[in-house]
Amino acid sequence: MAEFTHFNESGLARMVDVSAKPSTERVAVAQARVLLKPDTLTLIQQGKIAKGDVLAVAQVAGVMGAKRTPDLIPMCHPVLLTGVDISFKEEREPDAQGFCSITITAMAKTTGPTGVEMEAMAAASIAALTMYDMCKAVDKGMAFSDVYLLSKSGGKSGSYQRV
Amino acid sequence: MAEFTHFNESGLARMVDVSAKPSTERVAVAQARVLLKPDTLTLIQQGKIAKGDVLAVAQVAGVMGAKRTPDLIPMCHPVLLTGVDISFKEEREPDAQGFCSITITAMAKTTGPTGVEMEAMAAASIAALTMYDMCKAVDKGMAFSDVYLLSKSGGKSGSYQRV
Amino acid sequence: MAEFTHFNESGLARMVDVSAKPSTERVAVAQARVLLKPDTLTLIQQGKIAKGDVLAVAQVAGVMGAKRTPDLIPMCHPVLLTGVDISFKEEREPDAQGFCSITITAMAKTTGPTGVEMEAMAAASIAALTMYDMCKAVDKGMAFSDVYLLSKSGGKSGSYQRV
Amino acid sequence: MAEFTHFNESGLARMVDVSAKPSTERVAVAQARVLLKPDTLTLIQQGKIAKGDVLAVAQVAGVMGAKRTPDLIPMCHPVLLTGVDISFKEEREPDAQGFCSITITAMAKTTGPTGVEMEAMAAASIAALTMYDMCKAVDKGMAFSDVYLLSKSGGKSGSYQRV
Amino acid sequence: MAEFTHFNESGLARMVDVSAKPSTERVAVAQARVLLKPDTLTLIQQGKIAKGDVLAVAQVAGVMGAKRTPDLIPMCHPVLLTGVDISFKEEREPDAQGFCSITITAMAKTTGPTGVEMEAMAAASIAALTMYDMCKAVDKGMAFSDVYLLSKSGGKSGSYQRV
Amino acid sequence: MAEFTHFNESGLARMVDVSAKPSTERVAVAQARVLLKPDTLTLIQQGKIAKGDVLAVAQVAGVMGAKRTPDLIPMCHPVLLTGVDISFKEEREPDAQGFCSITITAMAKTTGPTGVEMEAMAAASIAALTMYDMCKAVDKGMAFSDVYLLSKSGGKSGSYQRV
Repeated sequence: MAEFTHFNESGLARMVDVSAKPSTERVAVAQARVLLKPDTLTLIQQGKIAKGDVLAVAQVAGVMGAKRTPDLIPMCHPVLLTGVDISFKEEREPDAQGFCSITITAMAKTTGPTGVEMEAMAAASIAALTMYDMCKAVDKGMAFSDVYLLSKSGGKSGSYQRV
Repeated sequence: MAEFTHFNESGLARMVDVSAKPSTERVAVAQARVLLKPDTLTLIQQGKIAKGDVLAVAQVAGVMGAKRTPDLIPMCHPVLLTGVDISFKEEREPDAQGFCSITITAMAKTTGPTGVEMEAMAAASIAALTMYDMCKAVDKGMAFSDVYLLSKSGGKSGSYQRV
Repeated sequence: MAEFTHFNESGLARMVDVSAKPSTERVAVAQARVLLKPDTLTLIQQGKIAKGDVLAVAQVAGVMGAKRTPDLIPMCHPVLLTGVDISFKEEREPDAQGFCSITITAMAKTTGPTGVEMEAMAAASIAALTMYDMCKAVDKGMAFSDVYLLSKSGGKSGSYQRV
Repeated sequence: MAEFTHFNESGLARMVDVSAKPSTERVAVAQARVLLKPDTLTLIQQGKIAKGDVLAVAQVAGVMGAKRTPDLIPMCHPVLLTGVDISFKEEREPDAQGFCSITITAMAKTTGPTGVEMEAMAAASIAALTMYDMCKAVDKGMAFSDVYLLSKSGGKSGSYQRV
Repeated sequence: MAEFTHFNESGLARMVDVSAKPSTERVAVAQARVLLKPDTLTLIQQGKIAKGDVLAVAQVAGVMGAKRTPDLIPMCHPVLLTGVDISFKEEREPDAQGFCSITITAMAKTTGPTGVEMEAMAAASIAALTMYDMCKAVDKGMAFSDVYLLSKSGGKSGSYQRV
Repeated sequence: MAEFTHFNESGLARMVDVSAKPSTERVAVAQARVLLKPDTLTLIQQGKIAKGDVLAVAQVAGVMGAKRTPDLIPMCHPVLLTGVDISFKEEREPDAQGFCSITITAMAKTTGPTGVEMEAMAAASIAALTMYDMCKAVDKGMAFSDVYLLSKSGGKSGSYQRV
């Protein structure tokens, strides 16, 4: 069976030694899906034009959150991000429970010995948390789901594509 | 229709003025549910005893993440947290897709003019992200879902209980 | 002659003891004036509608910067901000040197034993720095000037109004 | 007309992709000019010898502020600074409004794919804010002006020298 | 036998709930003792006057470090520090191993439900680390010892005085 | 006599220019020795199995602290850590004063133009501070001593081994 790499011989957490890994270009893409009431989605869409853009604030928070990843995730290596981008896709059609959704897709890039999966995951999560914060006065039941890695490339373990 | 409170008259984001709100005791509880392969759950459960405790690291990250909330979520007020606790509940029975789960429940407390919903949500999310980081070498498809507020009490808007 | 309060008897910097000061409501307002080419102002104004809102990003950075003040300014006390707001006023008429301007006004509020002058000053400055960052690819000569406190109220030293 | 690079196709802010840019040595120099009453300048100059050195504290804050730039300026890339230095030049002769001045010059250096203009600008601004904080008990009307880039070298866009 | 309070029923770390504790004025004083070669002490003492003041930089770092305590020590509560001061006492007489010493004494103050022992301990430690950093080019063998709490007052557990 | 490198010609602190230094692999190892009552050591050793693992929390804090070094130590360069590990060695035999001890050994690694002595020293110190925080409710007299660099390798100044 596989073993966790993030623990030393004494069973205590460590930052894995990557000094022997070559520097390669790495890209990771992750997502989160925010579930919200149809009225809340309407407010967000109207705000973009007139009253205040929730997605613009979430975007900034997500990009900044990607940079804070090594401060937040204990065993993450510091990383020189060379690019971060986030996009939003709105789904107006309510699901079986009556929720519309906004899917956040976050891309992170670096050139170095370690990947940026966590940076992409953190960017998507913090953008989702920010959307909750901006909207919670009108929709406390908002949630987010399906936070996962969509793809990554670069590094020894090669490419990954979620199926 | 309700209105967002986090924007000023020009449609730009602001930190809402809470100076007139009374200081009350506030508690918020949020959750996140981590989905993982049965083998990964087995590794986590064995590690607790012998090889390294993933949940202990996630717990520390979640508590520290709660304290970083105002640094991460742009319009959040600084808050004097008076307590943070996190618990984990493992579900060994695989769901329809073959995934086991660990549900993270995060509680945050303060006495002040603003609530701690975001602190509880951030603690649960960052604990989930940390679990992903610790396990991603063996289970890249891990995900987390159902991040939402379970309950809150205190403040003018009163108590909330997710149904 | 007046004396600096931020040094101890040995001439080394200290965080001034405010434990005996009463908690009062305090407001501070500061400004910064960004000087830019007419074409750059046009790009910012067009972006608001179509291509990307520089002021929305600067606003978020300014609010977050206010919260980071005690991390940045060595002798500042930690402060529980109860509100932060920022506004922008555009001046299309070029000055004698041919520069248009955008004046940033930042307001910070707290209830406590110390003032929030530095939080307002930091919010205005970091909003200005962010505008420079967003625009420097098209206008490297952009500058900002006239960063000062406009007014403050609350606390023993009473109100201040710049004349 | 030129275009902003910091926005994606949807008009939302992004961290520009620099992964294709070569790593070169880069230097940036920025300034800020602090305006203060003659008595305040006297206090600062006397303090250097006897009672507490305002400029030494501002220097430390400026160097540390340069390192915090990617935490403060939303779309800035993380940067491995290889050197930061700050100097102060005092002008005792009052200007037309009766203010003396201290000009802060901040230099930042790195070897990498992105420039350090923002690091130099942030160092100068945070040093100026710190001077205000240290002196505001005796001179609330202190201000700073003329924050701009003096020069930069390295990178595709080449050298820049303010005229 | 006494029990640790920082763990929950599952044996995982938590931030202890202090919401029922009254707010009282609290003071803590801690120390660290830096051991260095006589020549290094001479350089530090000369620098104060002419070439650069190591202790002034260590003082700033210590005060800023006190403010970062909840970011560094996982289970520490956020605290509104109302004052921090640090002093240095030089001992020129070498000890049995030939080392001179500089004793750092750090005082932290707050009014609130939790103590500031950790803030005082962190201030002393980070001032000591900074002295090491500033001097390590000339004295790599520098060390620090005897980091402990000297006294605290306020709170339910009352006063403590190290004997 | 040697000279400090961390000051400029005006005697003000600077981040030393390392842009001309070659990038080499660098390792540093530092230690801290925590002194505690025999009963406290017993509690820590029992907790590892049943009630809460003090050393696991200290380990996480130490690794995260290593990453925060440039935020804490004013003149430290940002560093891309490629590995951090911490180990603990318990000494049950009380010393002359009746104290048992736990020696913390922290290793930090990077590939770059500057060393990681400060990262190793900070990791050991912050792990020690965290142990104090976790245990102070039962042993306020706990202390730590003998914080020093054990060894370093890489860089122009070559290897160092404490004797």
